[in-house]
Amino acid sequence: MEDSKFEVVAVDGLARLGYLKTGHGNVQTPVFMPVGTNANVKLLSTRDLEELQAEIILSNSYHLAVKPGVDVIKSLGGLHSFMDWRGGILTDSGGFQIFSLRKLIEVDDEGVLITSPVDGSKLFLTPELSIRIQRDLGSDIVMVLDQCGHPNSSYLETKDALRRTHAWAKRSVQVGVADNQMLFGIAQGGMFSDLRRMSAQYLAGLNFDGYAVGGLSIGEPLDLTLEMTYETTNNLPRDKARYFMGGGSPDLIVQLVDLGVDMFDSVFPTRIARHGTALTSYGRLNVRSSKFKTDKSPIDMNCDCFVCRRFSRAYIHHLFDRKEVLGGTLLSFHNIRFMMNLMRRIRESILKGSFKLLKKEVLELYEQKRDSNCDVVGNDRGFNTG
Amino acid sequence: MEDSKFEVVAVDGLARLGYLKTGHGNVQTPVFMPVGTNANVKLLSTRDLEELQAEIILSNSYHLAVKPGVDVIKSLGGLHSFMDWRGGILTDSGGFQIFSLRKLIEVDDEGVLITSPVDGSKLFLTPELSIRIQRDLGSDIVMVLDQCGHPNSSYLETKDALRRTHAWAKRSVQVGVADNQMLFGIAQGGMFSDLRRMSAQYLAGLNFDGYAVGGLSIGEPLDLTLEMTYETTNNLPRDKARYFMGGGSPDLIVQLVDLGVDMFDSVFPTRIARHGTALTSYGRLNVRSSKFKTDKSPIDMNCDCFVCRRFSRAYIHHLFDRKEVLGGTLLSFHNIRFMMNLMRRIRESILKGSFKLLKKEVLELYEQKRDSNCDVVGNDRGFNTG
Repeated sequence: MEDSKFEVVAVDGLARLGYLKTGHGNVQTPVFMPVGTNANVKLLSTRDLEELQAEIILSNSYHLAVKPGVDVIKSLGGLHSFMDWRGGILTDSGGFQIFSLRKLIEVDDEGVLITSPVDGSKLFLTPELSIRIQRDLGSDIVMVLDQCGHPNSSYLETKDALRRTHAWAKRSVQVGVADNQMLFGIAQGGMFSDLRRMSAQYLAGLNFDGYAVGGLSIGEPLDLTLEMTYETTNNLPRDKARYFMGGGSPDLIVQLVDLGVDMFDSVFPTRIARHGTALTSYGRLNVRSSKFKTDKSPIDMNCDCFVCRRFSRAYIHHLFDRKEVLGGTLLSFHNIRFMMNLMRRIRESILKGSFKLLKKEVLELYEQKRDSNCDVVGNDRGFNTG
Repeated sequence: MEDSKFEVVAVDGLARLGYLKTGHGNVQTPVFMPVGTNANVKLLSTRDLEELQAEIILSNSYHLAVKPGVDVIKSLGGLHSFMDWRGGILTDSGGFQIFSLRKLIEVDDEGVLITSPVDGSKLFLTPELSIRIQRDLGSDIVMVLDQCGHPNSSYLETKDALRRTHAWAKRSVQVGVADNQMLFGIAQGGMFSDLRRMSAQYLAGLNFDGYAVGGLSIGEPLDLTLEMTYETTNNLPRDKARYFMGGGSPDLIVQLVDLGVDMFDSVFPTRIARHGTALTSYGRLNVRSSKFKTDKSPIDMNCDCFVCRRFSRAYIHHLFDRKEVLGGTLLSFHNIRFMMNLMRRIRESILKGSFKLLKKEVLELYEQKRDSNCDVVGNDRGFNTG
């Protein structure tokens, strides 16, 4: 019997408490993975991430393949060694770039030709090459190459992309990963319930180590995000981890945990930090506001991070006012700590059977009207509620 | 008898080992003070500075008076509390802005009108107001307002500026500082030996707690820097600390220590860090060079900082290549650590009587032809050997 790499320890409704056994330690779920696209979570060192008690981070195999190049990272002992990171790493496959870099993309059944926005170099990425890159990087969780659609894609376009995504998933399983790696499939299907169900069922048959819900949180209304997620997770095996790609605001996370999602990633907490917004136990706080100019209190009185123990809102306001990057560094540290504490509280509430209460509390503080034209900026699976 | 705030413990030639007793702990000299113009040493938190074992930092009272304003900092408990910094703070008076912002300046005998390059606000700074600002900030070492000249100033211009500087020094002594503060005079005199001697002798008669050598390292040739410094220090009392303003490259520091200078500050180590240059025991290292792309070794094998213990040149090269600010943060941390270790070695060598050997070693590694048109960028007393 195959050794299971994911265990569910407790449930509360559909919400699940569990852990993933990675090649770099166990990861408690539900988990939030900070995003380190270019082998660093912006403004934070891996020492910071250890102090923040992050257990797993995300990086992006396509971007690393362009710079510094897979051969470079391999020659330096792999991505963990390159970053000096002892925890888990999940690497994205490059599939999201089919959406985020869509003007620089040509897709056919064989693979996808991506022109780098960084240096104009061209990479023809196939499912097989994506896996080989991620094997060379040595990440703990390898994502298959998929074709991430657009929220305005038609049924027929989406169905055709799904056919390709499924063929790529099958080819990926045939390549396989290293013994200490996990391979995750990515369910697509756009904004269409039947395609979402079909995708989950098809991928379930390929017996992946875990399953991602892809192609959501890319601008569609929240109701649709939740409905499409449910159609997916409801058709996935219960004994495998489920990862919602690119969603990371507190309100979205609690709603998705409530549908049985176990894993999250987003640039959201660090991106808003660099723009002066803190996540706090009182809701969002824009520290650039002049009302904080003389405010002695910490960013969040209920936070245990060193930023909140040492610095006032007034000081961090001043740093942003003077365009000192240290302000963004301090808020990035705090916001990741906020996310780690939120996930811990979610896990505790599932164990106690009080998850619904926590969900209600978070929604009251964090629910916001999401802009259906929300703009995914840059090169990450980014959830942008700005 | 007055309690002495500075003790010389050992000498080696003119080089002195000693300590300053500040309101926030003893400071071992010779000392390098990292520069935190806007109440932060760029990219580093005060927690970082503690780990780096910095005992005293410099900040700038003029810039803080503009933003966030002295009233704000006072209402938050003073500058130490505002930054959460437990070590010493020396605040510059605003005199350097008479040089660095010279196009935005009008000087008369009463004081200097400075137009802020940040927000266009005007501040009429007098010697009395500068002291009052520094009292309100609560710094440990208060600098008098002086008129910093230009390397091309004529003898008569320099003599007139010196007359004003001396009158301002006297007015500053009359105002006085708080009991737990020290007041330092600033000797000027441009590039003229007799004026330098005259300035040192005049200020010595005012019985300051310490003395700065001002108006040097602003573009003049090195020989002149050293000659003018000697003419100053040789005419200052031996039992008071001597501070060379705005000089901080390793080669300059060892030559000035050899003339009996005790204190240094410069933006140099952090500025070059942000541009990818590391200070190392092998000399300067530009980590952006493509030759470091696959270099597994640390920035400096002989350094004890966490950056050198954890990260390779290849990783930091990659961060700079991808314009990730974390690269500058890590090198800033390392470069300050390098300076702290250099100063420790200087102090140990004075105690052992082997300072000249250390000086020779540092000069061989770091001496560079200094550009006599060296450009002081921005708003700090910055020594720029670029």
